[in-house]
Order: sequence, then structure tokens, then C-alpha cells
Amino acid sequence: MVKINKNYLKLQDSYLFSTVAKKVSEFSEKNPDKKVIKLGIGDVTLPIVPAVVESMKKATDEMGRKESFKGYGPEQGYDFLREKIVEYDYKRRGVNIEKDEIFVSDGAKCDTGNIQELFDENNVIAITDPVYPVYLDTNVMAGRAGEYEERTGKFNKIVYMSVNAENNFEPELPKEQVDLIYLCFPNNPTGTVLKKAELKKWIDYAKDNKAIILFDSAYERFIVEDDVPHSIYEVEGAKEVAIEFRSFSKTAGFTGLRCAYTVVPKELQVEGIQLNKLWNRRQTTKFNGVSYVTQRAAEAVYSEEGQKQVKENIEYYQENAKIIRDGLVNAGYTVYGGINSPYIWLKTPNNMKSWDFFDKLLNDVNIVGTPGSGFGPSGEGYFRLTAFGSRENTIEAMERIKKMN
Amino acid sequence: MVKINKNYLKLQDSYLFSTVAKKVSEFSEKNPDKKVIKLGIGDVTLPIVPAVVESMKKATDEMGRKESFKGYGPEQGYDFLREKIVEYDYKRRGVNIEKDEIFVSDGAKCDTGNIQELFDENNVIAITDPVYPVYLDTNVMAGRAGEYEERTGKFNKIVYMSVNAENNFEPELPKEQVDLIYLCFPNNPTGTVLKKAELKKWIDYAKDNKAIILFDSAYERFIVEDDVPHSIYEVEGAKEVAIEFRSFSKTAGFTGLRCAYTVVPKELQVEGIQLNKLWNRRQTTKFNGVSYVTQRAAEAVYSEEGQKQVKENIEYYQENAKIIRDGLVNAGYTVYGGINSPYIWLKTPNNMKSWDFFDKLLNDVNIVGTPGSGFGPSGEGYFRLTAFGSRENTIEAMERIKKMN
Repeated sequence: MVKINKNYLKLQDSYLFSTVAKKVSEFSEKNPDKKVIKLGIGDVTLPIVPAVVESMKKATDEMGRKESFKGYGPEQGYDFLREKIVEYDYKRRGVNIEKDEIFVSDGAKCDTGNIQELFDENNVIAITDPVYPVYLDTNVMAGRAGEYEERTGKFNKIVYMSVNAENNFEPELPKEQVDLIYLCFPNNPTGTVLKKAELKKWIDYAKDNKAIILFDSAYERFIVEDDVPHSIYEVEGAKEVAIEFRSFSKTAGFTGLRCAYTVVPKELQVEGIQLNKLWNRRQTTKFNGVSYVTQRAAEAVYSEEGQKQVKENIEYYQENAKIIRDGLVNAGYTVYGGINSPYIWLKTPNNMKSWDFFDKLLNDVNIVGTPGSGFGPSGEGYFRLTAFGSRENTIEAMERIKKMN
Repeated sequence: MVKINKNYLKLQDSYLFSTVAKKVSEFSEKNPDKKVIKLGIGDVTLPIVPAVVESMKKATDEMGRKESFKGYGPEQGYDFLREKIVEYDYKRRGVNIEKDEIFVSDGAKCDTGNIQELFDENNVIAITDPVYPVYLDTNVMAGRAGEYEERTGKFNKIVYMSVNAENNFEPELPKEQVDLIYLCFPNNPTGTVLKKAELKKWIDYAKDNKAIILFDSAYERFIVEDDVPHSIYEVEGAKEVAIEFRSFSKTAGFTGLRCAYTVVPKELQVEGIQLNKLWNRRQTTKFNGVSYVTQRAAEAVYSEEGQKQVKENIEYYQENAKIIRDGLVNAGYTVYGGINSPYIWLKTPNNMKSWDFFDKLLNDVNIVGTPGSGFGPSGEGYFRLTAFGSRENTIEAMERIKKMN
């Protein structure tokens, strides 16, 4: 008799974004005259830049001609793209990554979930709290999370590392033995970063404890401060302990095109086995590569025109982030993130609960954000706004918040 | 201390296609004057049809304009594509499948591997022998295969169902209890099919034994005979026991574009739980949908022009298959498949070993095919040729084989 994977039944339904959507739609129904401004979503809104559009159309034409048609491509990605990644994302920052350490994929979400397949199910997982929910949920599915405890809002086998104003959003090294550590910086949802010295602590910890760091740097393109590493490999020793996840989603607006990559350095060995070889085996067996057209799109991001155009889009979002940050500070809020990140993480006034603040913001000034508690127990009393709205709406939102009591 | 998934170490390296490539390149080096004809690959060669190219370029332009730009799409696929699938692939054949039973993905290879995540690791797996290697390898990775036995060339926990000339390439119902049964028809590598009555036996077996059929119909577009079902759901009762995998790879030449879909009917329940809900949870958590542009490409396959153009391509390959089949029969070979499939499966002459026949074909007449033993122990003594070559090469290959001693 066939049996299902019972771990799926332990998953907690995430009501976060569906509850947000429901509340907003109820409000709009009751108040059809009010203009609601949405600063809750983590999705880009500016279109694909012209250099990328042009490259995609060219690649599409190639696919339509017999002499240039491409069938199955290499599961790891085409060399033309892997070489650009090596050159622009790493070598230019003084980091030496080899072409065959790059694995092009259809999303960092997939990769951060799938990477676990390489590891024994008894490894202990550490995540920050609050956290991007995928790291947790995929481990629940794989049976590594243990049981959910209503009282704490946590799974009993997961090590939660709280990040909050008290520790400057820098997670403390775990006291218990952990094996796989998810770090995402610039962080989603808090928008905060780890500087080089802080990251070095984690690398040393991983070495000392034979742990592996799963480093998600999907937001690296938003970094403006010089001493914040774009890649964990900018920090000495990282290649021996860290896998890095990158994405074109936020850096080039590819959320609807699907292209990302994962770096698995050859130095990274567990029990004498190169993880690079295991990941290669996983990808060649369970994945069939990214569309040729999409890979040509990603390649165009690295062209001179592409870089210029993408930079303009990033600057647009960065300016929005600054407007939100300054607006909130002027209105008397305590604010984090938003400097090297499209996310602004604010402390709710008077220790209001996150969802109460959500209701107040929606009802009083018709602005939608995301309650911090939705990202984990330590997010309670915080609130996330994003810089992905239009300039006009972003400015208007801050004017409204300024006037709010 | 981090530990790897030891199941990966049980994987048998597949030397099939790399050995083929090595032998061919060695031959060509020694014989630079010989024209080698390759009929070994399972990849399409005709370009993407004009209707699809046009639709992709239009979608790309949409992505480049703010008012029509699309960010994250639904993980399950856009309605415009799911509706076309429901209408053309099912309703037109008298099968009622609902839109939310369709999950669009980037490949049937991914889906046939990932689907296992829904099931307990102690389920017993049945595969045909020979078989498309992904079904086996992904189960080895997940720890369901047991140990590899050199003597038999098999894993000791997998139930191998031999398909061969003696049983007309129709696998026999397993005597032992099995829980998950992979069936691929039209079959890769044998090119043979199961008719409705034969499939019905499997559905009854699955019902009686509370097993699930994982039905891969990636080659359905090649079916020409009326009594061969294109979908397992054409057979009564299948919705309660079967998941179906479909792909645009072979049907519309999308091997380089990456689009497929999986059907999980709501009737399909295990221990009172809808697998549709579990797969939805899996996909929304570990997958982020297929590129908008690629989904518009797939949609265009269903347009009037698209259907006409795709049909022409399929007919081109079908004619190649007929040329190979007839050529081999005329040359005195015993031949299977190739009628409802792009694959021709031939019995080697004089019970030659598959690899010996490979060498003979390469050395004597400079033709490359795939040794049957590479697909499993029961493939020994068989050989695969594919219809994906050019017409000219296909004809020439048959002329050469005719003259071969």
C-alpha cells in the first residue's frame, strides 16, 4: 500500500500573504473610494531592460532556424553565461571561481530547497528568525524539522537564531552543534547586512564545527556600502565551507523569466567527497537546464548596455528605499535595512503587535505592508515595507504616514 | 558534523552516452575521411515552428514594457496555458481534466524525479527493464533502491519488470507488492505501446493493491494507431490511481525551451489525502513557475497555425521512423517500435551483445546508435535507433545497413 511522506502534514500553512490579500480586498470592498498603496510585495515592477529584450528576441530567432536551433543544453548552463558570471560577479571582485563551479538554474528558491538532497536527513539545520520561509518549509518536507510546537511557534529540531534590534540583526553563533546554516544577506525580510568581519566569524565557526553555510545573496546588487561583501567568497576561507545562491530575479528583474545560479566550490568537501560532484549528479539527473533563450537574456545583463540599464533600475528602487527610510525616520519611527536592500524593516510604535500595525496602516492611511511576525516569532513587533512600488506611490505613502497619528 | 546523503554513493555512473561519444570521437580521429551518421540521440533537430517563435517575441516585448511586464507568475502555470491543455490535450479526447489538476513545469524529467518527494521512503518502486534511467536514479538518490548487485546489474529493493520480445514488450503485473509503478508509453527506449485493454489491467492492479501509476506520456504525439491511448485517463478509473507526465519537448521541439506539465487528478487520494494538494504545496514551496515567455510559447503550440506546423515536424520524424523500420526489415532485422514512436528497437543479429553490435555498426558502416543494455539488463541483445536525424542521413544510413554483412 502506497504511503505518503508524512512530513508534509507537519507543514504549517502560511497564511501570511493570503491573509494580507484577504484583508486588503475586504477593505477595498468597504471603501471603494480609497486609493490603497501596496508596499508589501517582494516582486519587481520595472520591465526587463532593452538590452535583454533584444538579446531574447535574437535568441528566439536562432531557435527558429535549423542551422542555429538548440535542443537539450548542458544541465549546468551554457559556457557563454557561466563565463560571464565568473568574470563579472567574481573575478571583478577579486574572487576566483571556476566555470564548472557555477550551476545555472531556474531559481534560487528551487536551489535553496533542492540543495538539501545532498545531505543526510539527520543533519541539524540553523535558520535565522525571522526568515525567508522556503528554508524552513523545505526542511520540514524533508523530515529534518521535528515537530511543530504551538506554544513557541517553532519546530523542535530546528535551531532558530533570532535577529533583532538588540543584536543589531547579527545572528549569534549557535551554542548547540548545527550542520547546515542558512544565511541570507542582504537579508530578507529585515534588509540588514553582515559585514566582512561578522561573516568571517561564521566561516570560522563552520570550519571548527564541520558545518556548511548555505549563503543566499539574491539581493547583492542592492549593496551600496563598501565594506559589505557581495559574495561570501570575498571572505577568506569561505570556499571550504559555503555554497552561494545568486539570482537574476532582483538584480535584473527576472522574477518572471526564471534564471539563477548556485556556486559549489571544489574545495568544499564532506567526508572526503566534493559537493560539486554531488550537485552535478543531482542537477544532471533531476534537472534539464535553463531555456537557451533565458540564458541569452541573462548573458545580456552583463553587456555594457545591459549593465547600464540594470543599474538604472536598481537605482530607482534604491531611491524608493531611501524615500521610505527617510520618511519613516522623519515620522519618528525606528527603522532598519533599506540602505543595502530593497526592504525596510521598522519597529512598530509602542510595541504594537505586527498585525495590529498592519490593520492600523491599512485603515488609517490605506497602505499595505507585511507583518514581521509572518516571517517568524522574532519578527513580532516589526513590519516590512518594500521599495518595489512606483516613485509616485512611494512618496505619497510617506506623506500619508507622516500625517498618521 | 555535516553528513552527506549516502544514497548518492550508490548511484551507478552511467557511462552509456559518454562511452558512445568517446568511441565515436576515437573512430572519427582514426578515420577523418568517413562520414559518421548519428542516429543515437533522443533530441529533436527541427527548429521551433514559426507560430511559437512569433508568440515568444511578442511575449518578450510585453516583458519589456511597464504596462504589460509580468513578475512572479502562478507556480502552477498561467491559466491561459492550463486552459489550452485542458481543452486540446484532454477534452478533445473525451477526458475531463480540470485546470487546477494541471501543473506546468520546466520538464518531465524534473517532475518524474520530484514527484517521489510526496511519498514515504519505504514505498516499493517498480520500473520496466529496460527503462529511462531517471526513474531509477532518482529513487536511488532518495534511498528507495537498496543495494546494487553487480551480478544481476540491479538494485535489490527495486522491482524490475522485464519488457522484451517474449512478452511483446508488455510488462507483466508484479507478483510482489509494489507501491509506485513507473510506466512510460510510447516507451523510451523500446518505442512500443500499451493498448487500452493492457493499460486497464494496470489500473485494476493499482486499485486492488493501493498502488500509484506514474505515467510518462512524453511521446504521445507520435501515436498514429487509433486504439493506443494518448493519455492514461482515456482508460476508465485511471484518475483514481495515476499521475500523468507530459512534455512539449518531443511534441513541439521544446527540448531547449523547457516546458512540460504534470496532471494530478483530485480523485487521487492516499490515506484520505489528495495528492493534488500535496503536489501543489511541493510546487509552491520549491518551484517558482515557468518563464512567462516560455508559457506563451507553449500556448502557441495550440493555435491553429501552431498545430499545423508542429504536425508537419512530427510527420517528418514519423517518416524517418518508417524509413528506418522498413529499411531494417528489408535488411532482415527483427524490429520493434517506430510506429507510434520516434524510437526503433531492433534485435541484434545472431544474439550479438548490444555493445558488439554498436562497434560493428560504427566500424563497418559508420552509423551511431545506442546499445540496449545501456538502458537495463533486459536491454542486452537489443539496439536503439532514433528518427530525429535528417531525412538525407536517415535514407543513407539504411542504404549502408542494407549493404552490411
